Amino acid sequence: MKIYFTFEPRPDLKEPLIEEFPNIEFVFHSKLDEGQLKDIDVLVTYGEDLNERRIELASNLKWIFVASAGIEKMPHKAIHECGILVSNVRGIHKKPMAESILAHILSLKRALPFIYENQQKGEWNKKAQLSELNGSTALIIGPGAIGSEIGRLLQAFEVYTIGCNRSGEETPFIDETYKIDELMSVLPKAEIVISMLPSTPETRHLLTYDHFKQMREDTIFLNFGRGDVVATDVLVKVLEDKLIRHAVLDVFEIEPLPKDNKLWQLDNVTISPHFSSHSSRYVERSLDIFKPSLRKWLAGDDNLENKMEILRGY
Amino acid sequence: MKIYFTFEPRPDLKEPLIEEFPNIEFVFHSKLDEGQLKDIDVLVTYGEDLNERRIELASNLKWIFVASAGIEKMPHKAIHECGILVSNVRGIHKKPMAESILAHILSLKRALPFIYENQQKGEWNKKAQLSELNGSTALIIGPGAIGSEIGRLLQAFEVYTIGCNRSGEETPFIDETYKIDELMSVLPKAEIVISMLPSTPETRHLLTYDHFKQMREDTIFLNFGRGDVVATDVLVKVLEDKLIRHAVLDVFEIEPLPKDNKLWQLDNVTISPHFSSHSSRYVERSLDIFKPSLRKWLAGDDNLENKMEILRGY
Repeated sequence: MKIYFTFEPRPDLKEPLIEEFPNIEFVFHSKLDEGQLKDIDVLVTYGEDLNERRIELASNLKWIFVASAGIEKMPHKAIHECGILVSNVRGIHKKPMAESILAHILSLKRALPFIYENQQKGEWNKKAQLSELNGSTALIIGPGAIGSEIGRLLQAFEVYTIGCNRSGEETPFIDETYKIDELMSVLPKAEIVISMLPSTPETRHLLTYDHFKQMREDTIFLNFGRGDVVATDVLVKVLEDKLIRHAVLDVFEIEPLPKDNKLWQLDNVTISPHFSSHSSRYVERSLDIFKPSLRKWLAGDDNLENKMEILRGY
Repeated sequence: MKIYFTFEPRPDLKEPLIEEFPNIEFVFHSKLDEGQLKDIDVLVTYGEDLNERRIELASNLKWIFVASAGIEKMPHKAIHECGILVSNVRGIHKKPMAESILAHILSLKRALPFIYENQQKGEWNKKAQLSELNGSTALIIGPGAIGSEIGRLLQAFEVYTIGCNRSGEETPFIDETYKIDELMSVLPKAEIVISMLPSTPETRHLLTYDHFKQMREDTIFLNFGRGDVVATDVLVKVLEDKLIRHAVLDVFEIEPLPKDNKLWQLDNVTISPHFSSHSSRYVERSLDIFKPSLRKWLAGDDNLENKMEILRGY
């Protein structure tokens, strides 16, 4: 039994893995070496180093564990035809992303940009308006697993959480949920509005200037879903017209955000370079999903966590 | 029955108060006017505008409600001799202060200073090491009511919380508690170390260079208690020697921190100008304590929330 990793976990993560499965031959390379593919049973990969030829070479391959959420770059058909099992690390971004969102909200409420700025100038300056997260109301548009984790953390700060999704179906840690077509009337209820929407034909440019006009003046808007939920020009106009207090953007219509985009010039926006799911604990968390799956699979059970429908793309 | 406020709450806070107590004559001034003192029954003040003469002038005064935590600047003896009841807003700083602490920790874990810096330079830069608060261990030295609130929020992020206080007595939301003389051996357990210690002869310069040597290299140290728990020179040396990752300081031995202090030059420190308890909801929270107390007092019950022992100073 041979398992091939096309990335190298840190020694403190690798060693316990080897120890836990003494009968398995593990090979770790920081880059895929085609010569290794012939006799491997399991491939552990970030999912960007596969193509049809390589699937053919790996004639003994039975399971691909993808240490990433997306499988867009994989040769779906070839994998399906060879009957190879695929599972991934769906949900791995939940905790770090929710922490980034809380970090940004608290930073604005507790005047951290003001603190950093005055420190740079060497100035002891108390003249900031510090507000509180406690007791506010947050609206999460598209609350899936990540939205629910955000709701859980917000509730610890005694925030009232409102969700807005396609079905209007309840989500854990969200106090009340509305359908997406009720969005306009829900917006004035919240002073924190978070979009976690994916990019689909329905969500593209879903948020218009009128939506922002509906928001309260002190609203903090955060987009951590996909950039095209609001047109960049609309966002610029909303912020120039000061319809809301501040926008925190981790995603953009075009990434990287072009150098000459007006957003760079505004002071009521935070530009985060689409990395708020990053975490030094990424590989650790991936192995926390991989290890129980491997135990299960070795016991002959194919029903693994996050098993993918490779042809459907999820 | 006349109640004199020597500060002016916002109309949206003042009006409901007047409405709730229609039989009371309220007078609101943004500054104490001695001419008003003669016939007042209750004085609501930040506690910095009183002296012996004014207590004498207020010959009908029965209760002073202090909308602040400290009563250092009040004429203790005169108040005691006139048998005037004193109560304050102890605990009012708990929520905003705990939020500031969480804001600073999350900001460092999720690379917000890096984001702000690159945005200023107009650079799309993903090359930061983002870590997580989740799963870490925090040590709170001197966990009173504020420490407990910090513990509550940290636990929501699945942080293991350790307390260190004089008695070693348990505190809510703190997983395990040690005595202060065990501090040296407890320090290596945590990567977040928070001092909430007040300034007393025992806490002065309690933390030495050796204590910081005991801490883990990735430690974030936060001081939100009082500045003299560690000598400024020691702190500078600790940070120059990079014994820990970062210090967040809201309090200093000398405040404002002198312009020429070396701390201003270091990049592994955050200098917050002793305002992390500030909140736009301060007056609202004060009135939330005042109103039930007033109701109680009007019903003849003297046993008010946060009743002070004026001669003892707390």
